[in-house]
Amino acid sequence: MKEDLMAQKITLQKLIGMALSEDIGSGDITTSGVLTGRERGFAKVLAKSETVVAGIDVFRETFFYLDSGIGFTAYAEDGSRVERGEAIAELHGNLMSILMAERAALNFFQRMCGIATETRQFAEAIKEYKAKIIHTRKTVPGLRVLDTYAVRVGGGYCHRFGLFDGALIKENHIEAAGSIAVAVANVRRRIPITVKIEVEVENLRQVVDALAAGADLIMLDNMSIKEMREAVTLVAGRVPLEASGNVNLANVKEVAATGVDYISSGALTHSVVAADISLRLECRD
Amino acid sequence: MKEDLMAQKITLQKLIGMALSEDIGSGDITTSGVLTGRERGFAKVLAKSETVVAGIDVFRETFFYLDSGIGFTAYAEDGSRVERGEAIAELHGNLMSILMAERAALNFFQRMCGIATETRQFAEAIKEYKAKIIHTRKTVPGLRVLDTYAVRVGGGYCHRFGLFDGALIKENHIEAAGSIAVAVANVRRRIPITVKIEVEVENLRQVVDALAAGADLIMLDNMSIKEMREAVTLVAGRVPLEASGNVNLANVKEVAATGVDYISSGALTHSVVAADISLRLECRD
Amino acid sequence: MKEDLMAQKITLQKLIGMALSEDIGSGDITTSGVLTGRERGFAKVLAKSETVVAGIDVFRETFFYLDSGIGFTAYAEDGSRVERGEAIAELHGNLMSILMAERAALNFFQRMCGIATETRQFAEAIKEYKAKIIHTRKTVPGLRVLDTYAVRVGGGYCHRFGLFDGALIKENHIEAAGSIAVAVANVRRRIPITVKIEVEVENLRQVVDALAAGADLIMLDNMSIKEMREAVTLVAGRVPLEASGNVNLANVKEVAATGVDYISSGALTHSVVAADISLRLECRD
Amino acid sequence: MKEDLMAQKITLQKLIGMALSEDIGSGDITTSGVLTGRERGFAKVLAKSETVVAGIDVFRETFFYLDSGIGFTAYAEDGSRVERGEAIAELHGNLMSILMAERAALNFFQRMCGIATETRQFAEAIKEYKAKIIHTRKTVPGLRVLDTYAVRVGGGYCHRFGLFDGALIKENHIEAAGSIAVAVANVRRRIPITVKIEVEVENLRQVVDALAAGADLIMLDNMSIKEMREAVTLVAGRVPLEASGNVNLANVKEVAATGVDYISSGALTHSVVAADISLRLECRD
Amino acid sequence: MKEDLMAQKITLQKLIGMALSEDIGSGDITTSGVLTGRERGFAKVLAKSETVVAGIDVFRETFFYLDSGIGFTAYAEDGSRVERGEAIAELHGNLMSILMAERAALNFFQRMCGIATETRQFAEAIKEYKAKIIHTRKTVPGLRVLDTYAVRVGGGYCHRFGLFDGALIKENHIEAAGSIAVAVANVRRRIPITVKIEVEVENLRQVVDALAAGADLIMLDNMSIKEMREAVTLVAGRVPLEASGNVNLANVKEVAATGVDYISSGALTHSVVAADISLRLECRD
Amino acid sequence: MKEDLMAQKITLQKLIGMALSEDIGSGDITTSGVLTGRERGFAKVLAKSETVVAGIDVFRETFFYLDSGIGFTAYAEDGSRVERGEAIAELHGNLMSILMAERAALNFFQRMCGIATETRQFAEAIKEYKAKIIHTRKTVPGLRVLDTYAVRVGGGYCHRFGLFDGALIKENHIEAAGSIAVAVANVRRRIPITVKIEVEVENLRQVVDALAAGADLIMLDNMSIKEMREAVTLVAGRVPLEASGNVNLANVKEVAATGVDYISSGALTHSVVAADISLRLECRD
Repeated sequence: MKEDLMAQKITLQKLIGMALSEDIGSGDITTSGVLTGRERGFAKVLAKSETVVAGIDVFRETFFYLDSGIGFTAYAEDGSRVERGEAIAELHGNLMSILMAERAALNFFQRMCGIATETRQFAEAIKEYKAKIIHTRKTVPGLRVLDTYAVRVGGGYCHRFGLFDGALIKENHIEAAGSIAVAVANVRRRIPITVKIEVEVENLRQVVDALAAGADLIMLDNMSIKEMREAVTLVAGRVPLEASGNVNLANVKEVAATGVDYISSGALTHSVVAADISLRLECRD
Repeated sequence: MKEDLMAQKITLQKLIGMALSEDIGSGDITTSGVLTGRERGFAKVLAKSETVVAGIDVFRETFFYLDSGIGFTAYAEDGSRVERGEAIAELHGNLMSILMAERAALNFFQRMCGIATETRQFAEAIKEYKAKIIHTRKTVPGLRVLDTYAVRVGGGYCHRFGLFDGALIKENHIEAAGSIAVAVANVRRRIPITVKIEVEVENLRQVVDALAAGADLIMLDNMSIKEMREAVTLVAGRVPLEASGNVNLANVKEVAATGVDYISSGALTHSVVAADISLRLECRD
Repeated sequence: MKEDLMAQKITLQKLIGMALSEDIGSGDITTSGVLTGRERGFAKVLAKSETVVAGIDVFRETFFYLDSGIGFTAYAEDGSRVERGEAIAELHGNLMSILMAERAALNFFQRMCGIATETRQFAEAIKEYKAKIIHTRKTVPGLRVLDTYAVRVGGGYCHRFGLFDGALIKENHIEAAGSIAVAVANVRRRIPITVKIEVEVENLRQVVDALAAGADLIMLDNMSIKEMREAVTLVAGRVPLEASGNVNLANVKEVAATGVDYISSGALTHSVVAADISLRLECRD
Repeated sequence: MKEDLMAQKITLQKLIGMALSEDIGSGDITTSGVLTGRERGFAKVLAKSETVVAGIDVFRETFFYLDSGIGFTAYAEDGSRVERGEAIAELHGNLMSILMAERAALNFFQRMCGIATETRQFAEAIKEYKAKIIHTRKTVPGLRVLDTYAVRVGGGYCHRFGLFDGALIKENHIEAAGSIAVAVANVRRRIPITVKIEVEVENLRQVVDALAAGADLIMLDNMSIKEMREAVTLVAGRVPLEASGNVNLANVKEVAATGVDYISSGALTHSVVAADISLRLECRD
Repeated sequence: MKEDLMAQKITLQKLIGMALSEDIGSGDITTSGVLTGRERGFAKVLAKSETVVAGIDVFRETFFYLDSGIGFTAYAEDGSRVERGEAIAELHGNLMSILMAERAALNFFQRMCGIATETRQFAEAIKEYKAKIIHTRKTVPGLRVLDTYAVRVGGGYCHRFGLFDGALIKENHIEAAGSIAVAVANVRRRIPITVKIEVEVENLRQVVDALAAGADLIMLDNMSIKEMREAVTLVAGRVPLEASGNVNLANVKEVAATGVDYISSGALTHSVVAADISLRLECRD
Repeated sequence: MKEDLMAQKITLQKLIGMALSEDIGSGDITTSGVLTGRERGFAKVLAKSETVVAGIDVFRETFFYLDSGIGFTAYAEDGSRVERGEAIAELHGNLMSILMAERAALNFFQRMCGIATETRQFAEAIKEYKAKIIHTRKTVPGLRVLDTYAVRVGGGYCHRFGLFDGALIKENHIEAAGSIAVAVANVRRRIPITVKIEVEVENLRQVVDALAAGADLIMLDNMSIKEMREAVTLVAGRVPLEASGNVNLANVKEVAATGVDYISSGALTHSVVAADISLRLECRD
């Protein structure tokens, strides 16, 4: 999974540069006042509550961006679970560099671990079912590459990354086209031949229409458990079904039990609880 | 308050461009398949639960970035509270533009409203005390200008924006300098004369040292209510005091009652619950 | 189709800025020496040989980028065919602006028209067959959005835009995975659920394997006409087939006649003959 | 010649980043699905038809941009001719990196080799004459630094790079100024003293005027062979003459025989046939 | 002359954005604290000592960059001289915008006027001679387009803009090539045919060599008045001569009297005295 | 102090890239004509007049930006004074790289040394007084980070870096707010709690008002020596006082003698005399 992020090196460097610039601005006036620039430091990165690790490369690269001489040892890899009090990594090197990059690095890392931890809970809640948890486009602007990676680390799957790698025909598209059939046909003519068409439906009649129109996937939007069960029966495996709308840890198992293939959750990325991780630092000469 | 964001036009345009590029990528393949590009639409922006509005300019500018011909009417301004079901704004214009910008615009707006709504709760909880809620640097990388603006809209105040506009001497700085006194003196020599020095302390002895060293502000880090009360008595108004660490809605009033001047909360920006806002769209020719 | 480009406004503005900067550099030393900056000009854009028009918006926007006061009237729209000597557009306004943007604007436009014109020839050659002409990723670095748009304008279709919106399992991927079956299964787990998997095969046995593995599309790589015909029979419509390799105007009809669904051509974008278009300019006060 | 490109390191890095971003976008979903990220590969870069090599540094740097650990051995240098089937280079290293950079690297390289190969043919066709082949500004937007470099590698020469390093007074400039004499005088006053003035003329009378006005170079625009010969006689070596317009391999020798000093060709860069080069890859652990 | 800057719109916008971002950073905390954002202001731009105006478009565009609704009336144009106390321009509009852009706008303008004023003094000192004052590449990094424009506004001329639009063979180049003759021949083969070659010489023998080698221009480096006079006699108008080194207002006339064609001065741009210009502002509702 | 610049690595790299791009543009046509790219050179950096060194890291990094293989030995560090003729540094490596970066590197360095040298004179002039020399925002657009660093190297101090890290209430702000008291109160509510408020006053009555309003600093704008002395007496150390306006080497001691705490000078950065530094280069194989 780690390799997905490696492939995003260009985006990653841009994000890290942006985060550091935003924080450092015209200078870290505290640190440059106190330190000579020659002090060395050693730091332990500790989980202050149980968490699934995600984004340790982003965390490390934020320090490297400022100072490629920082030494970094990871004690956990993306996807592993660490206990409260456990060390996730150690780093050592120029103290000024560590102090200047610390907050930006943690801001990335705590968010990513938080997403992975929450996703893991969803994934485990439905592990006896075939359904998979998928993310949405409700991510923080600019960080989608990190938010969606963290979902995958947590055991979730990718819906579409953006407007470009999946066609999702919604109510307004149907209305503009006149019917589901016309909408699907028109989109098919224009999209890359490698991309699928999903149709968002609100009732069983639309499920039938979408199937007839040749949809590759069907999204059941805010349907009741009963309706979803009927849709599953109706479709009978001809295309995958996605359940969407107001899913939470309390009801996700019931949704999975309907037999749908995918369950999407916006909250996984739009309402994140940052993992509690801190960096305990010691100065050294 | 709105004017603060106007002043950030350059940053704002960069963020909006980044958000739209990330989402649109090589094209909105659904919309460009279904629409001719000439359809017009009309949309109501609705609060689906009670929320404090924040970032309506960012929301509007995201549509304008793609299409300056979009018409936009705001029914609420930043800082106002809207009820569940209330319309926050209306917009009309080219349907394709609206559909393409919708998600990015909402991603900004829902986060900002979420931050303001949470901050408002904190601010109201302590309104009988002089203490003010302040943000920290635990913001989403790249969006600090928006996150901290939303805190102010919600009734919070600004601690420091970054490493450059406030000196905050922490444990590691003290250790590197040898003492609080040396650290304060060294930082004073280097910082802009318009910037204050805050010292983070962990016990009452350090409060005394910080006062003696001429700190302009003192941060009480993770102190008990009892210790904070003693610190307030000890300092006796000579410098403002900030309470920091594990503040939540349940305990914030008790913290405020100790007599501190500022209470900082990282969760306001690192663990945001997005406001529930949706855009109900109708096609029109 | 035009709307696809509108959706790429952000990329387009960046490309135009890059083209103008590259050409103007430290200044148009001829024009700023001769003109006062107040002269006005009028120009006819003429096809000097028959061409399919593509990219007229890019052409116009290049002038607008330098000077939003330029007047522009298009006499032909993207996709229309113009005869030798026919006027494609007229423009008038500040002469200095027109002279400075002319070359960059034509460099974009002539390439795009050239691509559309060539694609049209392919599309017409096979119009009695179901097969469609598709582009590849063999485009000019940085201009893929324009190159692939021009293919669509000419009557071609989109394969995948890049590495992100279609999975194409090639020989090296198969080798790394151990088998087609494993490769398809592994990719399926990682890709967005809206994206299809195509497998590149070199013989009929691999066609069978790809079908069995659940490939969504199969690419017949450099197969003979006879092999392609056998593959079509073998697959019997279960998944679409793409013919790839050394297709040209002389043999494309024969390839289409095998019954494949898509025919891809790298030459459409890697070896473009620019359309012959010129701007005839008159000075006016 | 190679050193010219080294000097363009900043531009080159920007172009490579743009090409890779465009292709990789939100991720190479095939490769990251199949590979673990630890596989190593070895690749031979082969000429599939005879070609003049140009841009081998650009090719190599595209791989290095993603992964500085790639090993690269060049078997041919810019300007050398390789036969069909000959190896141009070998590379080895992380397989994922090689697969991800392959297409972008080849897109640059095949275009550059194509330009150099075509230029070489022109240069050889006229090698018994003093005339030199020069490029124009009809290059692909953004890639002029590569297109013009490839022309030089092929044995061509540089006309002007852009609007800034050469004054070229055309018909519209003359019309605006009132006469060739006034145009030359006005431009002379404004341009850097290190830059020459060329005048584009359409008949012999204008040749006389340009000479009298003190032009440093004269461009014979679309003149007949006979007229060019007369112009050469008339000018008698006082300034260099450039033949421009509709030059091709069939007529270039005849043009050179008129005695002109330079022959410019837009087709060298606006209508490029990409060289046929491929990368044959083997996986290795 | 103004049109030269218009042609640099892209560079200009980048510079202005950089200047404003640097100054405004995370916000104008004074202005956004005091103003509501609705106040309007009116301002007179006054010369506080006699100055030649240069860069009034840059000045105006800096305000427009933040707020296109600012009204701006110029009372003087580039190249005109204004007296102490004279108004150069007036502007009115949103007070917050004016206050936020003021310093950045003046920083550009005062530097440019300072350069033009100094250049004018040099130009007037030698007005009875044919010699022209030219700038060097000793400009402030990033602002060369403004610095050299200001020199031209003041009555100076352009040497070369950068390393790309003029060949200047110096001592090290000669040493590397072995002789002036070889250096000139080698450079001639590589440079655009529209660019001249200047040779820097230190004595009369080198003048003879440079002439023999076919140099287009000769720079007399740090020669005495007597030597320069001899060089002028020796060259006898065959190529233009440039005097370089330690020219100031006290000796420039004597240098011009030697008969050289150009006199270059680095101090014009590396040691600028900013013009004394201020903005007197009144608030208005 | 050096560490301040290290902390600005991101900004620094952007500035250096901009400076080199501006100068090299489409290529160093002289050097790439004469050299093979394999020659090596050795250079001594010499002070041609006495100077305080500032920015040696910027100087070195400019060469490293083009070529990380350059060897660089510094003989003086920032803040040290070197005599006329003394070597400041030596560098050796690829000759082409050195020649191409030379001018950009010197343009940065000479300006920074010039600023530090001038600041040192001011600082020494007032060394018997408590007053400190501080910079203003009158810096060259884009280079503030370098200009203000050079002031600190010369013995000066930082006022505020920009509009964001210090509140400075001027005449227009007071007018808009209605009174100094209201202005201070309003700004206090909005600014980061770590930032001070300075009030600019023109007479003693305003000094009293500013004190009463709770200003943290008071700027005495263009006051006479007598008024300043009275202000010092009046304030009696309750807040620091800054003297501003028309300070020069001739009068700075008298200003310091009034007892003010800070003396600001715009000329330190808006009217810089570049230090005379040159690079003496020898070719070597």
